[in-house]
Amino acid sequence: MSDRFAFEVLREDPSGARLGRLVTPHGAVETPAFMPVGTLGSVKGLTPRQLDEVGADIVLANAYHLAQRPGVDTVAALGGLHALMGWHRPILTDSGGYQLMSLAELVRVEDEGVHYRSHVDGHAGLFRPEDAIRAQEALGVDVAMSLDECVASGTPRERVARAVARTTAWAARGLAARTRGATAVFGIVQGGFDAELRAESAAGLTALPFDGYAVGGLSVGEPVLETTRVAAAAVGPLPRARPRYLMGVGTPGDLLRFVAMGYDLFDCVLPTRNARNGMLFTRDGKLVIRNARHARDARPVEEGCGCYTCARFSRGALRHLMLAGEMLGAVLSTLHNLHFYLRLMREFRAALREGTFPSRAAVACGAWA
Amino acid sequence: MSDRFAFEVLREDPSGARLGRLVTPHGAVETPAFMPVGTLGSVKGLTPRQLDEVGADIVLANAYHLAQRPGVDTVAALGGLHALMGWHRPILTDSGGYQLMSLAELVRVEDEGVHYRSHVDGHAGLFRPEDAIRAQEALGVDVAMSLDECVASGTPRERVARAVARTTAWAARGLAARTRGATAVFGIVQGGFDAELRAESAAGLTALPFDGYAVGGLSVGEPVLETTRVAAAAVGPLPRARPRYLMGVGTPGDLLRFVAMGYDLFDCVLPTRNARNGMLFTRDGKLVIRNARHARDARPVEEGCGCYTCARFSRGALRHLMLAGEMLGAVLSTLHNLHFYLRLMREFRAALREGTFPSRAAVACGAWA
Repeated sequence: MSDRFAFEVLREDPSGARLGRLVTPHGAVETPAFMPVGTLGSVKGLTPRQLDEVGADIVLANAYHLAQRPGVDTVAALGGLHALMGWHRPILTDSGGYQLMSLAELVRVEDEGVHYRSHVDGHAGLFRPEDAIRAQEALGVDVAMSLDECVASGTPRERVARAVARTTAWAARGLAARTRGATAVFGIVQGGFDAELRAESAAGLTALPFDGYAVGGLSVGEPVLETTRVAAAAVGPLPRARPRYLMGVGTPGDLLRFVAMGYDLFDCVLPTRNARNGMLFTRDGKLVIRNARHARDARPVEEGCGCYTCARFSRGALRHLMLAGEMLGAVLSTLHNLHFYLRLMREFRAALREGTFPSRAAVACGAWA
Repeated sequence: MSDRFAFEVLREDPSGARLGRLVTPHGAVETPAFMPVGTLGSVKGLTPRQLDEVGADIVLANAYHLAQRPGVDTVAALGGLHALMGWHRPILTDSGGYQLMSLAELVRVEDEGVHYRSHVDGHAGLFRPEDAIRAQEALGVDVAMSLDECVASGTPRERVARAVARTTAWAARGLAARTRGATAVFGIVQGGFDAELRAESAAGLTALPFDGYAVGGLSVGEPVLETTRVAAAAVGPLPRARPRYLMGVGTPGDLLRFVAMGYDLFDCVLPTRNARNGMLFTRDGKLVIRNARHARDARPVEEGCGCYTCARFSRGALRHLMLAGEMLGAVLSTLHNLHFYLRLMREFRAALREGTFPSRAAVACGAWA
């Protein structure tokens, strides 16, 4: 367990939702919290000040990606990941298990670790659970993720079971390799869409002294009812006193649903990636800014929104910037979408604080609830 | 002449350099001033707030480009170019004569105007000097440029002479088409690299009641001594009481040289375009951030620089962002380079104010002087 990390459940709602507080070496984070994705060391297009302004308290990066470039030793030489990113508040890194499986060519998973060929420069490497912990400790992050084996949707049960066993074994090896008290480590529950395997994974991991627990391998293209079923089954065995992180989720409605199940942390590329493609989140639903009907619309993306984009730019202006391929279009769209997501989480927390969850939270979701 | 535009020479240096002040409907601009380039309605990657923070007082956009997309009527419907850009300080637009010649296919210049085929959607159009003025008035800019005929370097003297005559005729027609007192209009001296034709062009234009005068057709690939010779010859006939704008110039050393000749306004893509390519301006010269020697350099781009990039990011971090193709790398590099240019102009003005021009200005240029 980390000596510099703490989690407190401040209030538990009858729904199962929790208001909580993470304490890390780089400050506290109120939960439920959404973590903007900054895979390579930046939330695409945004300065740390802009991240601050949209209300981010903690961001996500990816240890596998950073290990490929600029390299963990390079980040360490530059003062660690906080210095690299110019972001001095909490950072959580995914170990990269998922990315290894989805990006690297010629991956071969063995009990020792993952043999891969880098997607960046083609070099061959072996990434072991101990390497994942050492890399994240060297990056100096606040929360590290244990290396897990992700399997594709549709994988035969026997192989999923083997991945679960391996993920548990790796979890123990990773924890044993810890050297830095300032980095908290979370285990990742796997088990595909099989409730029994999920329970087995949770049992194995919760027997280990992790600072928190994540549920991985969801939101990989399956129907939302499947995600819901598995996430609901997976949350039960997780200890109440530790933070629970549902990886890669989701839409505003997903966030509401999974907060209600008792998940505390979330990350997703939706608000940032969709922004770059011109899909804006509003209370009334999605707004496709390239649509011709916005060309002469002088209203902001969302009336009443307090973000910088809505304060300064019309739908017509944003549409023009996106159609002209101006970088500022992507920046302004990202600012708005992250502001939308992070405002939503503030509304969720306010609702939990005042005991009006989920009704107030559902209102905040608008058409997304 | 515009009824809402004024220019005052506050101090004239023995070198010929001037400290001045433009007053426009959107505020005042101290000169000499550098105008960041925002061709399509944004200085690539920067929000108006960031532009403010790097010290921009006035920005440049391009009427031809904006007429192609989103269209002048659309900009007007959205409240004008200031609203489109979210920028509420002065804007100068180039009419687009230069862009028409360099971008549009199948251009045919006649006395009536420029017949062109749009580089965006291929439509055929005729852009007359009256259209240039009407478009810029409809955009609601503070300073509009008269439509000029630019000729390529190496054009026979006879054709250059015809372009000069046409530019003067167009200037008179454009002025006659004015309807909006709030938009100042500048004439553009052409004449290639021929001193006699430059003098002829200046004589023709200064006989017309323009609010200011620009020298165009330079910095198009010619040797710097040629630029210097022509710019020096062209500045003489321009009225002392009007602002003088040297278009498309230049490096920090160019700015020093041409400020000393008595030019007041400048624009150039160098700081912004080079930033996106990873070329950073520092007092010690250029810094190519992709260079391997910066990989583990924890120093800022320029020691002592007060820009946001230098306050928060190391050379190693910026190199990583640029190599990884992260948009933030381009944003941070642009912030630094514009801050460098705009600080330089502040130093020039301070030197003129205190009578230490050009020595203090040369110190500010560092290796670029």
